[in-house]
Amino acid sequence: MADDARGATESATRMTRQICQGTMMPIGGAEDKEGAKVVLSRFVELAGGKDARIAVIPTASEEPDKGAQYEALFHELGAAHVGVLQVERRQDTEDEAVLAPLRDATGIYITGGDQGRLVEVIVGTPVMDCIRERSNSGALVGGTSAGASILGAHMPTPGDGESGTATPRKGIVELVAGFGLVQDILIDQHFSQRGRIGRLLALFAANPGLVALGLDEDTAAVITPDGMLEVVGTNSLTILNGRHVRSDYFDRDDGEVLTVVDSTVHILAAGRRFDLNSHQPVDV
Amino acid sequence: MADDARGATESATRMTRQICQGTMMPIGGAEDKEGAKVVLSRFVELAGGKDARIAVIPTASEEPDKGAQYEALFHELGAAHVGVLQVERRQDTEDEAVLAPLRDATGIYITGGDQGRLVEVIVGTPVMDCIRERSNSGALVGGTSAGASILGAHMPTPGDGESGTATPRKGIVELVAGFGLVQDILIDQHFSQRGRIGRLLALFAANPGLVALGLDEDTAAVITPDGMLEVVGTNSLTILNGRHVRSDYFDRDDGEVLTVVDSTVHILAAGRRFDLNSHQPVDV
Repeated sequence: MADDARGATESATRMTRQICQGTMMPIGGAEDKEGAKVVLSRFVELAGGKDARIAVIPTASEEPDKGAQYEALFHELGAAHVGVLQVERRQDTEDEAVLAPLRDATGIYITGGDQGRLVEVIVGTPVMDCIRERSNSGALVGGTSAGASILGAHMPTPGDGESGTATPRKGIVELVAGFGLVQDILIDQHFSQRGRIGRLLALFAANPGLVALGLDEDTAAVITPDGMLEVVGTNSLTILNGRHVRSDYFDRDDGEVLTVVDSTVHILAAGRRFDLNSHQPVDV
Repeated sequence: MADDARGATESATRMTRQICQGTMMPIGGAEDKEGAKVVLSRFVELAGGKDARIAVIPTASEEPDKGAQYEALFHELGAAHVGVLQVERRQDTEDEAVLAPLRDATGIYITGGDQGRLVEVIVGTPVMDCIRERSNSGALVGGTSAGASILGAHMPTPGDGESGTATPRKGIVELVAGFGLVQDILIDQHFSQRGRIGRLLALFAANPGLVALGLDEDTAAVITPDGMLEVVGTNSLTILNGRHVRSDYFDRDDGEVLTVVDSTVHILAAGRRFDLNSHQPVDV
């Protein structure tokens, strides 16, 4: 029995090592920056508190002071060292001086903005490689809005149609490759606020192996290396499990209505936990 | 074995008799009135085609010519007899002359508009009783938008919050009693178009016995007395099964975020069928 239990534990560890190598903290956007700052406080705490060395990547944002804004916030929340990466173009990612704040970071924070900018400028570059290395070494990696979606292996991108309020049809949403810090998991944000559940259910039609995390605004998922997820913040996390889905995706043409059956939905409030190994909520 | 099979069939028949006593046809609103008219054509066909005697109930609408509009449409689609009920106030429902078009109707059509008007003017009156009697006698009962939701035993009504794009919190949506032509089933409409899935998932928190039909615009569910449902139209039907749901509803206060786990979601395109006895899609 003891050996069996140990075997099971090792197997679970191996599995979750693939899922998440350091702690991750995707945030659903619009996190509180003026009140109790529950989400950002937790980020600083998990990055090491007063000993945290935080690297901010504001590349997705079009606001030139976004990096400085988070720098001030993280200082205010007690982090001694905060650096901002100046990455505007793809070639910036090969400049060792630019990469410096990442090299010894205990927490990496990717701001919101244009998800496409993160793909164009950072995916596949030394900055992404360095983020992966830091995650492998145990650093916390977090991000908000577009900065949350980019953390997953896959992320949704609107296709032909307006995705928030449309019948699920083939082609209304497609997948783009993200940083891949978590396998088989797709992260969506502003979730209840923008009515995005339909586009994820449509995505399952062609992707029955995925589990999707739908993060509401001012709400985060803290995912530890053992594959356990905890909800933090003021709204909810919706988890969609596509692993039992059947669909007619590959028989349909672009624009045709999809049939997608047997998706499972869990809505979790703050403090709730979900086991990404067993795909089950804990203690509900 | 033959006896067992017969027993099972009789049991299924008894169960589905509770579910639906005549054929029902809830429609998700905005059904096509100018093109192929797939949904309205099917309504006329199921009501008896050229022999159909259709009663239109335009009470929910604020447009004074809504009854005449459907009268012309149903004539155009081949129905010989179409009558419009003039029911504006609750006392109108006790006037036998007003009820006359209902008494021998083979098809009853309830227009869209203000769901609250249907509750205020018709629920609990002789008009509702007559609709139930005609359904028991095998007449088709259909309706669009508000006229679809009213057919079920329960219907959703927005509570304190904006329901389409809000985190599921206690109190954002509540139940109101409808005509009760189908047991345990809740009908929602303009479903993908208005991003309404969140409010139904929130409803399951306090109502784990319900199955919800989320009808898209220009899309209908044809529910026959054997409990079989078929999707008709140009968009999709979302079916949410709350029968395995666990939640913390009764431990939460109004306004608090709900935890609701293990909802199952099926999205079905036109032509697809769903068995309301077994709660399973057929042939997917």
